[in-house]
This record gives sequence, C-alpha cells and structure tokens, in this order.
Amino acid sequence: MAEYPHRIQDVRVTPVAFRDPPLLNTVGVHEPFALRAIVEVVTDSGLSGLGETYGDAAHLARLHKAALQLTGVDVWHTQEVARRVAAVADTGAGGHGMSELASESFNAGRPRAASPSLRGDGMSGMVTGSRTADRVLSPFEVACLDIQGKAIGRPVSDLLGGAVRDRVDYSAYLFYKWAGHPGAEPDEWGAALDPDQLVAQARRIVDEYGFTAIKLKGGVFPPEQEVAAILALREEFPDHPLRIDPNGAWSVATSVRVGEELDGVIEYLEDPTTGIAGMARVARAVPMPLATNMCVVAFDQVRTAVEEDAVQVVLSDHHFWGGLNRSRVLASVCDTFGLGLSMHSNSHLGISLAAMTHLAAATPNLGYACDTHWPWKHAADDVVVPGALAFVRGAVAVPTGPGLGVALDRDALARLHEQYLSCGITERDDTGYYRRHATDFDPTPPRW
Amino acid sequence: MAEYPHRIQDVRVTPVAFRDPPLLNTVGVHEPFALRAIVEVVTDSGLSGLGETYGDAAHLARLHKAALQLTGVDVWHTQEVARRVAAVADTGAGGHGMSELASESFNAGRPRAASPSLRGDGMSGMVTGSRTADRVLSPFEVACLDIQGKAIGRPVSDLLGGAVRDRVDYSAYLFYKWAGHPGAEPDEWGAALDPDQLVAQARRIVDEYGFTAIKLKGGVFPPEQEVAAILALREEFPDHPLRIDPNGAWSVATSVRVGEELDGVIEYLEDPTTGIAGMARVARAVPMPLATNMCVVAFDQVRTAVEEDAVQVVLSDHHFWGGLNRSRVLASVCDTFGLGLSMHSNSHLGISLAAMTHLAAATPNLGYACDTHWPWKHAADDVVVPGALAFVRGAVAVPTGPGLGVALDRDALARLHEQYLSCGITERDDTGYYRRHATDFDPTPPRW
Repeated sequence: MAEYPHRIQDVRVTPVAFRDPPLLNTVGVHEPFALRAIVEVVTDSGLSGLGETYGDAAHLARLHKAALQLTGVDVWHTQEVARRVAAVADTGAGGHGMSELASESFNAGRPRAASPSLRGDGMSGMVTGSRTADRVLSPFEVACLDIQGKAIGRPVSDLLGGAVRDRVDYSAYLFYKWAGHPGAEPDEWGAALDPDQLVAQARRIVDEYGFTAIKLKGGVFPPEQEVAAILALREEFPDHPLRIDPNGAWSVATSVRVGEELDGVIEYLEDPTTGIAGMARVARAVPMPLATNMCVVAFDQVRTAVEEDAVQVVLSDHHFWGGLNRSRVLASVCDTFGLGLSMHSNSHLGISLAAMTHLAAATPNLGYACDTHWPWKHAADDVVVPGALAFVRGAVAVPTGPGLGVALDRDALARLHEQYLSCGITERDDTGYYRRHATDFDPTPPRW
Repeated sequence: MAEYPHRIQDVRVTPVAFRDPPLLNTVGVHEPFALRAIVEVVTDSGLSGLGETYGDAAHLARLHKAALQLTGVDVWHTQEVARRVAAVADTGAGGHGMSELASESFNAGRPRAASPSLRGDGMSGMVTGSRTADRVLSPFEVACLDIQGKAIGRPVSDLLGGAVRDRVDYSAYLFYKWAGHPGAEPDEWGAALDPDQLVAQARRIVDEYGFTAIKLKGGVFPPEQEVAAILALREEFPDHPLRIDPNGAWSVATSVRVGEELDGVIEYLEDPTTGIAGMARVARAVPMPLATNMCVVAFDQVRTAVEEDAVQVVLSDHHFWGGLNRSRVLASVCDTFGLGLSMHSNSHLGISLAAMTHLAAATPNLGYACDTHWPWKHAADDVVVPGALAFVRGAVAVPTGPGLGVALDRDALARLHEQYLSCGITERDDTGYYRRHATDFDPTPPRW
C-alpha cells in the first residue's frame, strides 16, 4: 500500500469560551467563562485534525504565529513541527510568557504580576514555569496525530504504542464554590463552603459519573477546615482514594502538619507548598507521597526534583508537556527515576478529553485516576459532536475509531466562538475576579 | 481509509554466522565468525517485518520462547509485545543472562565466568548489565515497526516522528588486528599492531567509505602505544574528530593520565575504566567528555550516572535498549539530563544498519557520528538484498521506502544459516579464542 504525503495546507485557530461555575482556588475564583483555543489542521490530501489548548491572549498570539510556519510539513514529521514551533514560540508575541500557566490556579498572569512580591512580567517569581514552546506545540502535535490516525484508520492510542487499557479512570474533582456567580442566580450545584456541602457535592458527582477516586481543590480555607472536609469525605466514601491540592498555599510547617493529620487518609498530597526546595522539606517529613503539577512542569526541572527527592508523583499534562509523544517520554522518565505518574487537568472541552484518554490508555505506568474538570462544564458547551465520550463507572472508554475519535461540530464551534467574543474575557484572571468580591485579597503563598 | 489489524501469525528466528576478521579488544579477539539472529514476523494480513539481534545460544533460546508468546498481537500494539516479552524473558532459558552482553568486548560470557575474579553465572561482577527483556524485545519491536511502515507506505523514520536528517554519519571504526586468523592466510586488511599500521588501516577505510570521524578500539596494548596511535591519527587526519575506547581496561589513574595526554585531541573518551564510581572519578579529572556503552546500558542506571556526573555522552544501541522507540526515550532522557548522545555498534548485518539509520535520522540530539562495524564484514555476507544501503562520504542515506527499506534475501539467509551450523560457534568467546594464542591471558580489568 503506497501512502501519499499529508502536508499541512491550512491551520485554523479559534478561541472559544464556555460557561464555568464560580470554583474557588487559592488565587481566586473561576470567572463566568473559561477560555480555550481550538486548533484545526487541514492537509493538502483533504484530511483534518483537531487540537485543544489554552485560550489566553498571549498564547493565542503565539499559536497564530506558529500556525503560519507549518505550511507544507508532512503530518508524520512531528519533529519538524516541533522544530518550527520552537523557532518562533519563545520570541515576541506578547512578552509575558506565563499568562496561560500550567497550573489552573496560577493561570492568572496579571494579578500575580500586580502582586508586590512578584515581578511585573508575570513570569518571575512564579512557582511554575512550563516551557512556552511545548505549550504552543501541543495542539498542533495532537492534530497531526489525529490526522495520522485518520489516514491509516487507527486510533491515536495505536500511534502511541497501543492502548494497555480500554477504559481510563478519572477522579471526582471537588471544588469549594460559591452558590453562583455574583449577581446571578445560584447555579445547579449550589454552594460548597464547608465539609457538609462538599460531601454533598461529592455524593452527587460520584453518583452521576461513578468516579472511584476523589480530589479536593484546597488552599481556599484554613487548613483545619480542609482537613475536616477530607475526613468527612473519608467517612462518606470509605473506599475511594482521596487527594487534596492546595496549589502551594501552605508553608512547609503547615504542609507537614496537614500531612501528619492525613496520614493513612490520602493517597497523595498535591503541591502543598511552592518550589522544589520546600516540597523536598515536606517530603522528608510526611508519610504520604507528594504530587506536583507546579514544581515539575518541564523536562529541565526533573533532574533537580529527583536529586532533591522533592516529589514522588508527577501529574503529567499533554497541554504543557508538548503533546502526546512528549508526555509519553515524561512517563518513561518517571518510570526510569522511580516517580509515580498521574494526570493534571484544566477546564477543558471534548478534544482535550479525547486526547487525554488516548494518552492515558497508552501509558502503562499511569498509576492513578486522572484529573478532569469535565463535570463542571455544561453538557451543551462543547465543540465536538456529542456521544463519542461518556463516563461509565468513573471511566471513559478509549475511542477505537480513527484518530482521536471525535468530530468537530461547526455550529457549536461558532456558538462558543461567539461566546468568546461577547464574554469580554481574554485572559484568565481568577485573582482579579475574586478581588471584586474582596478588594484586599492577596494570593501570595504561603497563605497559611 | 479503514485499516484492518495486522496480527502476528508467525515468528521465525534464524541464527546466522558471517566471517569476521581477527579484531583485537581488551578481552581477546574476534573469532572467525560473528553470530546474529534474524527475526521475521509475519502477520495474518500477509505482511512481514525484519529484526536483527545477537546470536548467542542463551539469547536464541529466549528469542524462541518470546516468539511463542506473540501470536495474535496487532503489530501496532508494541507495548503489548513488550509486556509479553518481559513476562518470559527473565525466566529460565539458559540462566546466564549476559552471554550476549551489550558491549562487544564483554560479549564473552564463558571466559569471564571462568575468570577467578568473577562469579560463575557470567553476570555477577560484570561491568555492564543491560536488561534482558529489552535485549529480547528489540528485534520484535523493530520487525513490528517494519510492518507498520509497510502497512502504511511510510519509512520507519516517519513512525519515530520523522527524519530530521536525510543522511546519517558513521565513524571509521579502527581495530588493532592480527594479519589473519591463526592458521589461515593473512586477510585483505593485514596486520594492525602499531601506530603506522593503524594509520594505514584508517587511510584505507576513510578513503573507501569517506568517514569523517574516527574511533579506535583500544585496551589492547599499553596505553602509551595507544596514545601514540591517536597522535599519529591526528597528524594524518587533522580535521577528523577522534575517539578511543579501551572498554574499561584502564585504572582510574591510567585513565586520568591518558585523558590529560589527549587533551584537545579526542572528542570524547569512551569507557576508559569500569563502573560508574570509577568513571565519575575520571570525569572530574580529565578535560574531555566521557562516553559509555558499559556503565549506562539500562534506564535504571541513568539516575546514578547523572547524580555522580560519571558520563557526559551515552552511546545508545537499540539492540539492548529495547528497540527504536525506547532508544528515542533514551535520547529524550539524555536531552533532559544534559547528556550527549552517540551510537554504539556490534558486528552486524544490513537489517541492523537500516534500523540504526532510521533511528539516528529521527533523533535530533544525536550529536556524533555513529559507530558501525560495517567495513569489517565481507560484502557478500549479508541477509538483505544488496543496494539499499550505501556509504557516501561516510554517511548512509535514510531509506525512504516503506518500513526499514531492506528486503530479506532468502538464499543468503540460508547460506549464512548453514555457515552458523557449520562454524561450530554458538556463543561469542573472544577470550577463549585469544587464549589459544596466549594461554595465560587474563582480561580482568584494569589491565593497565
């Protein structure tokens, strides 16, 4: 069988916005709309592939700049795609490289730049720094794999060495939240501001999706209250693995105290404090593994983290590790260095869920249920044709059709793009939004 | 385009032998025939793929055992192939796991086992220990990629992210050698036992193949003579990067002295001494990078080597790193940890050369000309149809046809298999062969 080239002829980058509840985290609260960018790659052979990534303005500018470089590249030559993206991703196009930061909590370039303790470029002093070229590359690489799969009639998981599981487990991602956005009616979820309300949220989400593991986004209330919430969850769900992630809100001493209090209760403690040095100090003192998507977010940070034994579990995320193949390399690196592997999530749509599911399916050493914000999204707010992805007993079946196994719904894309244009948000700003509620709010860690 | 599965229906493992000159190294001398195993994987869809690996008896037994496990696996599911191979590779089947050791010099299980300083199983006390499951997996993984490429009409390099170069540079691999095998006429190369003869060998090999880098297999004569040879090569070839590889024959002190003497002359010093601790001591004292294919030959050795800063360049080799995809992971690991990357060779045939060329082509951070024993092989001794691979200016053009781009010559395979059956060699034994010449020869390092 002779195969002709599939050369990139056109790349479309469409920013979209979808409704998001007022989910609280340590730097503020989710705004009424979350932003994403949808990438479509079209070849001269008539095939098209999809990718999804952050939608912040500076990132969009880089995506557009990178897209212009890709004309003529064969979609099988993902290393050439990477080379071309890297050549333009780190220059110009906005300047403040971390406005679309890896961590959902630290996605807020402006407010943290405005914080007196941090530099004005939104980068310096931040606790995390994923590689700009990798963030820009990711949606293009995923789209190329989608096209490869369509070209050969194979699911993307086959292009990653083959699925080692046919269903991928996700976790119930609990958030403290307001009843509704300020000035709006309470949303369907209502408030979750104490342990009882959190347990109720967990019960609903677990009953609806069947999740078999539970994660709590912490760093919102004093640690004693969040410890109480975890203990209440343990009582209600005696068999669900539990995790808590305060996004670095705690001092080393506070982290150690919480770690001791939750001994035997949580499967891992995620980013209790900021920085590799602080995490290493906590790791030496607490009984459970530490996980991170903040202090190890790029390959050049792995070495120090390993040398310091600062983390025991890395939360991978193909959106900032440079796509699916580079995420598999991360998995191998974790395997090599005895690090556990889990998966991080930001608010996302169906293209990302499909990509995450293929990646997780083809990653043998993924040892934990993956994070997902999926339940917080309105079912109607997506850009893919419904039905390809469903949660059953907390897991998503790995699509077996060609490519990612999801199709773009152009009407839905147009609707979510209109929403992007009308919502008035161009950069995620959890802190600024929270400050409308509490003007003196200062998210600088450690908060406790 | 819908693609049907390509399930493994049959696997053939054929041991072959090909003529080999009396090339000297620190554990002895090459016997008159070198052994390889040729792996053919055939699918129920009628496609077939090729792999090539070591031909020692214990390794052959493992290959046969693994082959039986692969029936029904889709060739795209290389992770499932790896799982099945790993499940049987480390059990039974011979016992002494390293008879087909990674390093060509330490490929001699029996003689080293007979050395009083080493244990009787051929493993313990050895300076190297590649992973048995990875050595067994390699030819099957390569054959699966060959089939994948044929199925979709793409070269194997495309399955590895695409070639980043269309020609792969190899080095002129010089050996001290006897004029001919004992009892036989001098071979076409004649003796190389002093600097002048080595320079003449280099001149011939460089003129014939166009190599632009030169490697000397050392550890044969006292270091002063080998240093003199390198200096003579430098004089004759002022612009060729030079390397020397004594396979761990030197003490730390000797290694440091040689390193100082060759300051500014060689691009890297390969395995001057044995073990990560010794290499680390040498690395701290010499001005040039240290390279290895002996103390870092499996993923679980990378961490210590990095922590000790024992080596600066890893010589990858898909035959013992578990195939092409895992070798690309090694490349990424090296990139992550700031290690340089080169490529190791044993005596090999055309299937291996094709696989090495595709891998090297798709490895952006490969920074050195690859090793190859190719010039030491009789042109007539191969199992592939001639013409697909040629050296021009020291480089091999990356095959652009489907799969590996080489085809099996069944008559040649039968001839080399007959040669295997008649040659009387079933395990490589450089030391035993040398001892017929010098009965008291003891290769135990350090020799100087």
